[in-house]
Amino acid sequence: MVTIDRERFRESFENYSRIGATANGGLHRLTLTEADKRARDTFVDDLEALGLDVRIDRIGNIFGRRDGTDPTADPVLIGSHLDSQPYGGRFDGQLGVLASLETLRGLDDEGVETERPIEIVNWTNEEGSRFQNALLGSSVFAGNTELETALGLTDDEGTTVEEALGEIGYDGDHPAGPSDIHAHIELHIEQGPSLEAHGNTLGIVEGVYGMSWLRATITGDSDHAGPTPMHTRSDAMATAADAVSEINRLPNRLSADAVSTVGEFTIGPGSINVVPDTAEFTVDVRSDDDSVVAEAVTRVKQEVEHACSRHSTTASVEDVWSIESTAFDDSVCDVIESVADDQGIAHERMPSGAAHDAKHLNDIAPTAMLFAPSVDGKTHNEAELTEWDDCVRTANCYAAVTVELATQ
Amino acid sequence: MVTIDRERFRESFENYSRIGATANGGLHRLTLTEADKRARDTFVDDLEALGLDVRIDRIGNIFGRRDGTDPTADPVLIGSHLDSQPYGGRFDGQLGVLASLETLRGLDDEGVETERPIEIVNWTNEEGSRFQNALLGSSVFAGNTELETALGLTDDEGTTVEEALGEIGYDGDHPAGPSDIHAHIELHIEQGPSLEAHGNTLGIVEGVYGMSWLRATITGDSDHAGPTPMHTRSDAMATAADAVSEINRLPNRLSADAVSTVGEFTIGPGSINVVPDTAEFTVDVRSDDDSVVAEAVTRVKQEVEHACSRHSTTASVEDVWSIESTAFDDSVCDVIESVADDQGIAHERMPSGAAHDAKHLNDIAPTAMLFAPSVDGKTHNEAELTEWDDCVRTANCYAAVTVELATQ
Repeated sequence: MVTIDRERFRESFENYSRIGATANGGLHRLTLTEADKRARDTFVDDLEALGLDVRIDRIGNIFGRRDGTDPTADPVLIGSHLDSQPYGGRFDGQLGVLASLETLRGLDDEGVETERPIEIVNWTNEEGSRFQNALLGSSVFAGNTELETALGLTDDEGTTVEEALGEIGYDGDHPAGPSDIHAHIELHIEQGPSLEAHGNTLGIVEGVYGMSWLRATITGDSDHAGPTPMHTRSDAMATAADAVSEINRLPNRLSADAVSTVGEFTIGPGSINVVPDTAEFTVDVRSDDDSVVAEAVTRVKQEVEHACSRHSTTASVEDVWSIESTAFDDSVCDVIESVADDQGIAHERMPSGAAHDAKHLNDIAPTAMLFAPSVDGKTHNEAELTEWDDCVRTANCYAAVTVELATQ
Repeated sequence: MVTIDRERFRESFENYSRIGATANGGLHRLTLTEADKRARDTFVDDLEALGLDVRIDRIGNIFGRRDGTDPTADPVLIGSHLDSQPYGGRFDGQLGVLASLETLRGLDDEGVETERPIEIVNWTNEEGSRFQNALLGSSVFAGNTELETALGLTDDEGTTVEEALGEIGYDGDHPAGPSDIHAHIELHIEQGPSLEAHGNTLGIVEGVYGMSWLRATITGDSDHAGPTPMHTRSDAMATAADAVSEINRLPNRLSADAVSTVGEFTIGPGSINVVPDTAEFTVDVRSDDDSVVAEAVTRVKQEVEHACSRHSTTASVEDVWSIESTAFDDSVCDVIESVADDQGIAHERMPSGAAHDAKHLNDIAPTAMLFAPSVDGKTHNEAELTEWDDCVRTANCYAAVTVELATQ
């Protein structure tokens, strides 16, 4: 039996939240920046204070190992990520890492020994906002991305992941490869409105949406905004606006769960009285059903093409990144459900619209996730909030599931 | 009789075009920058070489005066502007200044004395791309903008016009106010496709479109692109895309000559997997008919409002700048037409969709403009081109009109 120390958990959360804090109560802690380094340093200190064996792998993932009574048993892996979105919230990722840390502290408090070792992890670059392959550390760990490819990715300033790791001293030497894992669980905030809408306080995550990221580049011709009649223009902005309007209407035509988002958008040359000659934007499409994602990608490309033909412009649409939908492990979900029932927690089984590192871990170990409710479903936003009661309730369930899995 | 020296005019044009030249054959010579200073210095040298009395006024307009035989007569004013759009073309503005310079050289070549003085001018900040009040120098000169207001305008980096003038040494001490002018003509490129389409090589410009500049700011809520269902979003990008699509359709619903342009567009926070919470864009609407411009402004605001109500976002639309349509002076147009007929130039009377400094001068003196054709109507673009034959033909007409006006 493990109990989360509500106040210590809170204090730990507040301490970490000061690292990269924004003026509006959010977090700006992009992966492998100075702020991320300070969060990592604090995390390593905390692991060492627990007497854990700490190791850093070549992609900068940080592991701490708490031994079990059976030295030959495969470990249970728990954890999440400490990096944040640009001007994001304090709960996304961080809550899961700190719930994992508090679980280990709780085990020590009560002198619990588990049969299996328990390993805690902080994954590198979950967010993908600085280096645009999200879930990078877990993907390399699970063998889904080549280490060399990952290290060679660059940010907007041309800095590679390898250079960034070196700059903050997290270019570890442990192999960044799969190891035998008995089971993996990740605690995270829901980042959507379902739990709140249904009056539940725990999400048992059965899988993750499939998704595709695209980048469209529209090329037109710049012209004077006055003497150029509408019908002789090749307006890249007008093209992009038409395409984006249609792309935003696609989900409703495809399935109830599908979503599409245009999150980045720039035009050139960008002068008030000049018809724009370039427009570039990203598209993020997701669904629980991979065939819906595939259809959405096809239609995004068609809508861009149609808009170009209306405006005498040209375009290329590049596939940036995609992942198939994931079905998590039923037996791990069952353990979570049984613990939740024991603890009297109102729960629901649900898919995750957001991708998580657990998605990659699922390829190499039985995996599932626990979601805590998000107030108003808000996330990737400085106002992101999960009530502390819900944080503690979910962490208690998570700790008990960890012990259960470590004694299997 | 004055004849433009084709080769000297060409050489002068090529020399000036090297100042702020871009790699793609265009011009990047934003107002009151180092490049603008060098063009101004060259211009002042050229005026002094002609023995003209040079003066700089408090808004940085540069004048050169060639005396007439009647010292009491009001002068004929000729000229245009040497500043350029960001990565714009070489003909816009510069051609008119250099045709004026060549006109004065031609008068000297042939020892022509005119009854009236002739003044040549280079106006400050015609383009409005660095300091967003276009036609600034001529507006102050005509008494349509207060000098103090103009000097206090800031660029994106917070530099004022006054500071920028001081930095390049063009903070002159001559009063920047109206003086008595007999007539004003400006030579400019058409920047549109009409002359070419009609097989004419001279436009006699009877007036300028009315126009309004607006800036819309949309506020939504940032959210995770995955778990946030489409119907719970407040997506600033989706709102802006819908509004811009409609804004681009407005002209066709209003009148044959109306145009609308969204030339600047930015969103925030700008992450591939985050629903944008802000979008900001400019709108430029124009028509020969002021009531059409007014109706367009009303509808732009309505379309933004409708888009907001569809997407649960809010917006403000700010009126940035506007000018009413202008009717140039009939008698000056008649002089141009009579000279064009004498010289056998195929011409048409037309309005200008682009604003020009002559617009402000028309408020204080009889004014009209001459347009040279633009190949493919291209302008505000590095590929902007007017065939040299057309430049010389229009300049010859312009020179003869100048002499005609100066002997009235």
